[in-house]
Amino acid sequence: MAQQHLDPTDPTVRAVPVSGDALAGYLRAQATEFLRSLRQHRETGGGGAPTRAGSSVGENGSDESVDAARALRRSARRISGSLHTFRPLLDPDWSERMRPELAWLSGTLAREHAYSARLERLIGALNRLSGTSFPTQAGPEAGPAPKSNLTIGAAKAGALLDRQLTLARTRAHSAALQALGSSRFHAVADSVAVLASEVPLTPAAATADLSPPAAAAESRLLDAVGTLPLLTAGHPYNAEALVHGLSADTAPQPQDAPWHQVRLLLRLHRYAREVLYGEECPVDVRLLAAGQALNQHRDAAEAASAAASAARTPRIAPATAYALGVLHADQRHEVEAARFAFQQSWQKEAVPTR
Amino acid sequence: MAQQHLDPTDPTVRAVPVSGDALAGYLRAQATEFLRSLRQHRETGGGGAPTRAGSSVGENGSDESVDAARALRRSARRISGSLHTFRPLLDPDWSERMRPELAWLSGTLAREHAYSARLERLIGALNRLSGTSFPTQAGPEAGPAPKSNLTIGAAKAGALLDRQLTLARTRAHSAALQALGSSRFHAVADSVAVLASEVPLTPAAATADLSPPAAAAESRLLDAVGTLPLLTAGHPYNAEALVHGLSADTAPQPQDAPWHQVRLLLRLHRYAREVLYGEECPVDVRLLAAGQALNQHRDAAEAASAAASAARTPRIAPATAYALGVLHADQRHEVEAARFAFQQSWQKEAVPTR
Repeated sequence: MAQQHLDPTDPTVRAVPVSGDALAGYLRAQATEFLRSLRQHRETGGGGAPTRAGSSVGENGSDESVDAARALRRSARRISGSLHTFRPLLDPDWSERMRPELAWLSGTLAREHAYSARLERLIGALNRLSGTSFPTQAGPEAGPAPKSNLTIGAAKAGALLDRQLTLARTRAHSAALQALGSSRFHAVADSVAVLASEVPLTPAAATADLSPPAAAAESRLLDAVGTLPLLTAGHPYNAEALVHGLSADTAPQPQDAPWHQVRLLLRLHRYAREVLYGEECPVDVRLLAAGQALNQHRDAAEAASAAASAARTPRIAPATAYALGVLHADQRHEVEAARFAFQQSWQKEAVPTR
Repeated sequence: MAQQHLDPTDPTVRAVPVSGDALAGYLRAQATEFLRSLRQHRETGGGGAPTRAGSSVGENGSDESVDAARALRRSARRISGSLHTFRPLLDPDWSERMRPELAWLSGTLAREHAYSARLERLIGALNRLSGTSFPTQAGPEAGPAPKSNLTIGAAKAGALLDRQLTLARTRAHSAALQALGSSRFHAVADSVAVLASEVPLTPAAATADLSPPAAAAESRLLDAVGTLPLLTAGHPYNAEALVHGLSADTAPQPQDAPWHQVRLLLRLHRYAREVLYGEECPVDVRLLAAGQALNQHRDAAEAASAAASAARTPRIAPATAYALGVLHADQRHEVEAARFAFQQSWQKEAVPTR
């Protein structure tokens, strides 16, 4: 692989062109990692029973299986992202075919983990809000009854969320198993196996400069960040995230969409940096913190949405609904907190990233 | 009155002793103001029907009557506070008798206004949360039905709060009327009338220095501020105010008490400054901002409590309870925001205040 030992703090490094070889090396490495994770996932029993909160596709929630599934998603996202950013350097037919398949795969694999994490986040919030420890049904310590200082409402809300999200997770688990056994998946795995040895670059790519497409990815990110209400987000307790929190519109909050979009573009920018710098890619703590804030933003938004949706369950007790209302508002405030954290990390002086 | 043209930013002014004459002048002025407000309140029809949100004891919510009631409370608080801070300089029997009576009076008069303001705050929050305009029953524009993007839950929660707090306000109004017609009130008014001409200072008070008791009031404030969790409050989105927000304990949040205490001590400190500086008392913007933050803190805490209490109404719909849960959490976040605002204003460099 063409290693790039560039110093990101030194603007002169931009003058050194990084060629298509670096892209080929990166894609080969990610494809190899994909195949390794897939093998590890099969060996560690991936495909067993659904697991408790925090784990993902894998039997008995073995750490190895969870790690393997995470690594599989990680490399699938990187391959897909690089195909997108460096489109002009790759065989267009091939990459057009490949990207939606990788997106389908990582999306399918991510879902079980997402429901697990969401349940864990909501139960954690209920514990914090009621000043007690409230185990999930699936947890090994599920024995003890809720403590006496936990309201019936909070306990019932927890049980309702546990039931709904555990069901969703079980379904996601089955869907992931089905996906991993499907011919569609085998076709993706075959394509990735080919990629591990031979990257379909265009004839001109070997000598083409990777900087322009990487710069374009960065400027798409900067443009999207430019549309965010960062001035508002920088004022703590601006109460923006809960605006329309009680409106009848049950669709996900439209105000969240630009933040989710920035999250995806930030990820593409990070992957493009990895391609340019190769294995020695330095960690940009600012990008890391910004990305973590946007992950929090997404997780809190989805948790808030799950609480609101649970509150629409027919025939629940008013106390349960009240607890879910408190929980929804709490998570929307976490959304606001994440925007504040993003604004704080983003406004720190940027170091040149290419 | 002994005017004190002191420059608060100049520490040398502390060397100029302010004597009991200044206290006598201050108390006479406040007593005169009390009697003037009382007369104005009677002339502007104080004692009529209870009024809509934003107004207080007074007929048809006339601005003059509301202003008069506010001025009455304002001077009652100042007299009572000064009696407390400058206790050693005043006839002890007289001030011991006077203070609880003034506290009873200002408390009784404040209640109607408090319920009005609380309802207004909660309806305002519901409007913000549902992205619509939801009038109170008592408002003149009560005609139009809630807009379609307002959930039934939010509309019902608004109607429930309107009903409960309007009832409480009506009762408070009657209690205030009854108080203003009582012999207990006439005794207070008579004592204040005496105070307007003759302040019962101790023999030594005329030449005594007011600075030590004023300094003691300030140090009680500083001690109380010292016990506040200001480090936590200074971190936005610390989620402290909602901790135990779902615990079964229905008593007001114990975490609020030290903040309420600081609010009272800050007020006593401000009044002591008014005594020392006389009518030329300079505005200390830092104290002003800190005091406003603590008022917000108190108002939001009581509004959150009212939402929680409304949610315990038997036989409400789950959607109503959900909206009240969101509202409760929203107001607890306003509590947290007020603590942050207090911390921000307090950490600004203090100018010498005596």
